[in-house]
Amino acid sequence: MEESAHPYVPRDLKLPGYVPISMSMSTILAVYLASSLFVVTLVWFLLGRKKATVERLLMCWWAFTGLTHIILEGYFVFTPEFFKDNTSTYLAEVWKEYSKGDSRYAGRDSAVIAVEGITAVIEGPASLLAVYAIAKGKSYSYVLQLAISLGQLYGCLIYFITAFLEGDNFATSSFYYYSYYIGANGWWVLIPLIISFRCWKKICAAANNNNVESKTKKKIR
Amino acid sequence: MEESAHPYVPRDLKLPGYVPISMSMSTILAVYLASSLFVVTLVWFLLGRKKATVERLLMCWWAFTGLTHIILEGYFVFTPEFFKDNTSTYLAEVWKEYSKGDSRYAGRDSAVIAVEGITAVIEGPASLLAVYAIAKGKSYSYVLQLAISLGQLYGCLIYFITAFLEGDNFATSSFYYYSYYIGANGWWVLIPLIISFRCWKKICAAANNNNVESKTKKKIR
Repeated sequence: MEESAHPYVPRDLKLPGYVPISMSMSTILAVYLASSLFVVTLVWFLLGRKKATVERLLMCWWAFTGLTHIILEGYFVFTPEFFKDNTSTYLAEVWKEYSKGDSRYAGRDSAVIAVEGITAVIEGPASLLAVYAIAKGKSYSYVLQLAISLGQLYGCLIYFITAFLEGDNFATSSFYYYSYYIGANGWWVLIPLIISFRCWKKICAAANNNNVESKTKKKIR
Repeated sequence: MEESAHPYVPRDLKLPGYVPISMSMSTILAVYLASSLFVVTLVWFLLGRKKATVERLLMCWWAFTGLTHIILEGYFVFTPEFFKDNTSTYLAEVWKEYSKGDSRYAGRDSAVIAVEGITAVIEGPASLLAVYAIAKGKSYSYVLQLAISLGQLYGCLIYFITAFLEGDNFATSSFYYYSYYIGANGWWVLIPLIISFRCWKKICAAANNNNVESKTKKKIR
């Protein structure tokens, strides 16, 4: 098999059998955005009807992030040779495109695979469980959302710290660096941070109420 | 500077300027165990006096794990060249010894540094805060303990998965593999798992009580 020149940085990255990307950036993004919008719309109108706005928004987020984790990131984790794909499979194209922002994806960096593996296998299904938990008003709703959000934040920390330690030179250009590596991942820092704060406050408030209740009932242990 | 032969695996690991370990394994372990026992005894008798046994044990764990994170792991993170230490500094000897179980420590593997960095800088101080939170019966006690325990579990997952992906060939012998790499880290899987389950249950119980209370008060939103 002849080795094709790849577009990724560092230039000495070896990707024997690389097949060039065939979809345009706008097609790849449009499909992702349209599918996400479809999921969010479904959740908003079908599952979230009787819920307050914040909970409706959260259900949309958990459905969106859960499916992203399971489908997109799951495909990456379990398809080590996606860069050799010559069938224009959408998911392979996504990762060929994203690797322009972080070539460690095409290069199978072990820290990236570890983070993405945990995200796809544990956090993805847990996110869908969070949709259900919010819908049904389960008592574990806040603690589950907090646990997943902290996991997402921990994953992002590992992701950014390892890149920094290895020279932070994995983007094809500063456009891809800021739009894919920083921009796309930024949402998975910002939103989990907000959700973590909210859940933390809710859990502490419940614990506090509980303490007050048990004290008024003179049931102090 | 002449390159000394190091005892670590893989044998082609480059450690220019390596200074051989000067303390015996038993000295290193004895100092760690004695200091830990000292901390645990102090916490048990001074801080934990009025607490139930489980809470007393938890305070001892958080003090022990917090100081381990800050002092031992903090030293590792911020002393990249500990393997060149020729002053028999105890903390350098610890990591020279531990590297026999996982040479990625001496080799400055970026995933290991990232995990240890988060552990030392975030989880260490947070663990000491957990001692305080339990002592004072703070409302954030369970959620804080859960957050740290999940962080420790996430860190262990990254630690083990990256080693596996890179061939799992970092121990000098199977003795060091099972006693240091598996044995020592096993505690930081087992105990955080138990604490996570306990805190999860406590948080859900409080949320449940809270729901019941608000329903009886007809304050359903």
